[in-house]
Amino acid sequence: MFATMGALGLAPTAQAAGREQPFHAPKSSDFTLTGRGAAKVVIVGGGIAGLASAYELGKAGYDCTVLEARDRTGGRNFTVRGGDTTTDLYGNTQTARFGEGHYMNAGPARLPQWMVTLDYCRELGVPIEVFTNTNADAYLYNESTGMTKPMRYRTAKADVYGYVSELLAKATGKGALDKELTATDQEKLVEFLKDFGELGDKLTYEGGERRGYTTVPAAAGTPGVLLGDIPTASEVFATGVGRYFSFEFGFDQAMLMFQPVGGMDQIPKALTKAIGSHRIRTGAAVSKITDKGSGVTVTYTQGGRTKSIEADYCIGALPPNILAKIPHNLGSGVQSALEAITPSSAAKIGLEYRSRWWELDHKIYGGITETDQDITHIWHPSYGFHGERGVLIGYYNYGDDADSYAKLTPEEREKRAVAAGVKIYGEKYRTELASSFSHHWRQTPHLEAAWHDTPGGPDDARYKPLNEPTGRVYFAGDWLSYTDAWQHGAFTSARKAVTALHARVLSS
Amino acid sequence: MFATMGALGLAPTAQAAGREQPFHAPKSSDFTLTGRGAAKVVIVGGGIAGLASAYELGKAGYDCTVLEARDRTGGRNFTVRGGDTTTDLYGNTQTARFGEGHYMNAGPARLPQWMVTLDYCRELGVPIEVFTNTNADAYLYNESTGMTKPMRYRTAKADVYGYVSELLAKATGKGALDKELTATDQEKLVEFLKDFGELGDKLTYEGGERRGYTTVPAAAGTPGVLLGDIPTASEVFATGVGRYFSFEFGFDQAMLMFQPVGGMDQIPKALTKAIGSHRIRTGAAVSKITDKGSGVTVTYTQGGRTKSIEADYCIGALPPNILAKIPHNLGSGVQSALEAITPSSAAKIGLEYRSRWWELDHKIYGGITETDQDITHIWHPSYGFHGERGVLIGYYNYGDDADSYAKLTPEEREKRAVAAGVKIYGEKYRTELASSFSHHWRQTPHLEAAWHDTPGGPDDARYKPLNEPTGRVYFAGDWLSYTDAWQHGAFTSARKAVTALHARVLSS
Repeated sequence: MFATMGALGLAPTAQAAGREQPFHAPKSSDFTLTGRGAAKVVIVGGGIAGLASAYELGKAGYDCTVLEARDRTGGRNFTVRGGDTTTDLYGNTQTARFGEGHYMNAGPARLPQWMVTLDYCRELGVPIEVFTNTNADAYLYNESTGMTKPMRYRTAKADVYGYVSELLAKATGKGALDKELTATDQEKLVEFLKDFGELGDKLTYEGGERRGYTTVPAAAGTPGVLLGDIPTASEVFATGVGRYFSFEFGFDQAMLMFQPVGGMDQIPKALTKAIGSHRIRTGAAVSKITDKGSGVTVTYTQGGRTKSIEADYCIGALPPNILAKIPHNLGSGVQSALEAITPSSAAKIGLEYRSRWWELDHKIYGGITETDQDITHIWHPSYGFHGERGVLIGYYNYGDDADSYAKLTPEEREKRAVAAGVKIYGEKYRTELASSFSHHWRQTPHLEAAWHDTPGGPDDARYKPLNEPTGRVYFAGDWLSYTDAWQHGAFTSARKAVTALHARVLSS
Repeated sequence: MFATMGALGLAPTAQAAGREQPFHAPKSSDFTLTGRGAAKVVIVGGGIAGLASAYELGKAGYDCTVLEARDRTGGRNFTVRGGDTTTDLYGNTQTARFGEGHYMNAGPARLPQWMVTLDYCRELGVPIEVFTNTNADAYLYNESTGMTKPMRYRTAKADVYGYVSELLAKATGKGALDKELTATDQEKLVEFLKDFGELGDKLTYEGGERRGYTTVPAAAGTPGVLLGDIPTASEVFATGVGRYFSFEFGFDQAMLMFQPVGGMDQIPKALTKAIGSHRIRTGAAVSKITDKGSGVTVTYTQGGRTKSIEADYCIGALPPNILAKIPHNLGSGVQSALEAITPSSAAKIGLEYRSRWWELDHKIYGGITETDQDITHIWHPSYGFHGERGVLIGYYNYGDDADSYAKLTPEEREKRAVAAGVKIYGEKYRTELASSFSHHWRQTPHLEAAWHDTPGGPDDARYKPLNEPTGRVYFAGDWLSYTDAWQHGAFTSARKAVTALHARVLSS
């Protein structure tokens, strides 16, 4: 069957760089010729991997039950809206006070064009819009290199690319590349550099309109005033602003990026609806997984009572750090594999403002400001343009930075994040603030991780017991993929588990 | 008064690069102290400059009448929808057959963050969304350099930036820049180049994930297959793909860009509504402008009848090439200035497809494919993602290319545009086509230009009679600005005329 699926794979076109592996969802008619029936499957975890498993198996009529410990499906796909309440593992309880229509995606927030997550949006009827991952007008700010004010991306690029072009053109002119390039190639290179670096006829960089204006060009009488203070090459390199440029070349991060309209949780909501909410038990924390050879028993607590469910198969779709804490009889290979994968920290704070001063005063409509502060990134919202209010992401940080903010009270987190933002945007960053909500994944009950570190990669030999079924138990999750922390990893891992399980049922 | 306005100007913040000149719209209370009343103004031309003039003057209660020769306001801001019919100067009549909700912006289509057009969208309540001006997954195709298939932007950038970085690192290593840069600067430069060019430890470019994949990374077992065939530096420079990179650095064109939701003509529609449609006469072609010293008489034909209108002032807001054909008594200085400004050609064809195969097969959600073909650009739509149908812009070309397509019948234009697109996208570019609509500005009655060439720039001495009032006649239009072809130019030029006219009325 796998061979057939390979043979039936989508024929790649000349331009089809970025194709996913072919996937053929189970369908009812698969059972017609074999006379076999769909099995009963219990799915532990109602995040994207668990929901995708139930959704795909459901297409063929499998009797799926999803057990989810939290009061909502989606796992780390969590959109915070006004009225949402959380309590973290340190005991901090917060209730979001965002206005109607405003939200923050505390977990995944952006979708590249190539990921299957977009295919699920299409299939599920979840509308999408552009996620503003890059903006020439957003800021770069490296306090540690001596910058006393932010620089816009466009200005930083103009200066860095200008000097890089000038220097390479000079070196070429000196014959430094005569061994590497023919005269024709050198000509073409210099022609490129002139354009790329906006070099003048003398092949020197002297600024230009790409840096920006202090007064923009307008009607006759207003030719515009170019942004002054063109730094030297030495000064530009010293700022270290160039370190942020390659982000947008990443296969995962290059624009165009997308987001579901109205919040990332439109995806789990649509999956939940498609699966049928009667198949999903929330507030159901799994306490034991037992493979019995002929079936699986999963024990869980719900509403203070211990319950159990019997099924033909089980898909373990919890994070590995949580699975590792659940008693099971799947063997030490499974347990040591789960324990080898370690959880990572990341956090976000949503800062709701009474006005969209970043649009009005800074002419920044979306995009990300990069800093060397412990807040790391500031995200401008990709929705609600020109509205009255808006939610900035005031920090999106990782590791020690996220953990150090986690130890603060929500009020202290806000204060510290705002102080960092004020350095870049000025006092309105403080004075226009309406409310905030912070979310730290390492301190989130039942998840306790933003993503995971999988030493050796997901195909390392030690993870074999997770990548193959152990008895009647399969595993799925972004942590068993090459796109950890992305829903694409959860979806494709679920597809892999579903494909294997279905093939087994069909041939059993 | 001008001095006061300057003094009241918005205080620039440290980060306010990209500020427009301050503008204070006329308001009723301006007349309170002076005892003077608002004047009667006839505005010739219902494009953006004319509408903006009427809109701003209307805020102070001026009695404005707009005369528009076409059957719709907006001028070159023209959104084509199913059912719209045009006849060009060559006699080609077309009726668009686009499906419900689909459109093409035949004229302006994108708004940078810094232009006042966005401020008008906010003020008028016109919702905006991202215009996808740049997309790492769109294609580059230079047939003339020997390319036999397109290359994605992301791949082209990875290769060009990779080799540029490698070459500059090499030259630096050879000491070729020892005179230009200190050892510390060289270290920082090389550190940047390693990251910018994704160089390995040997400071050489050997491809990488930024180029893309043939099979994308997914679940365990699928690490992904990197796109192969890494060209040499010589091969990459020979393709000339790098010539397209600087487009996105332009002050006018850098992402993020925006568009009104539902078509660019939401702007003139909102202006028209705000002005009041009773103040706008469509189908009214002006045939004479007479300055009488104490007022202005404008003669026009409407419905086959010749009419005239008397006003205190007139704003001439037609394109200069059209104004130059209208008899007037404003003197030879005005006439020769108008004639010095020459019209330019540009055109677009909208290709409606039965499926959004560019999303499904190519994973391209918006953005622009660049070519060296006579179609120049192909635009993917920035709206309707994941819908059933979609309208590509199959050519957006200028000058001779636009004129040569103009000479063809609409059917021939479609055939030629599709043949060019097939080379890049394959046969679906032809087989999925549902309908097309082409629009050529040089051949559009009452406009006869996409934009204009203003020798010497708008402040050249010869245009003085246009930049200052001639008697009681003022001029406004993008062609009297430093942002010709942008609505920003029309808006700011209108603001300038309105400001001068209002100051005169207040002091008269």
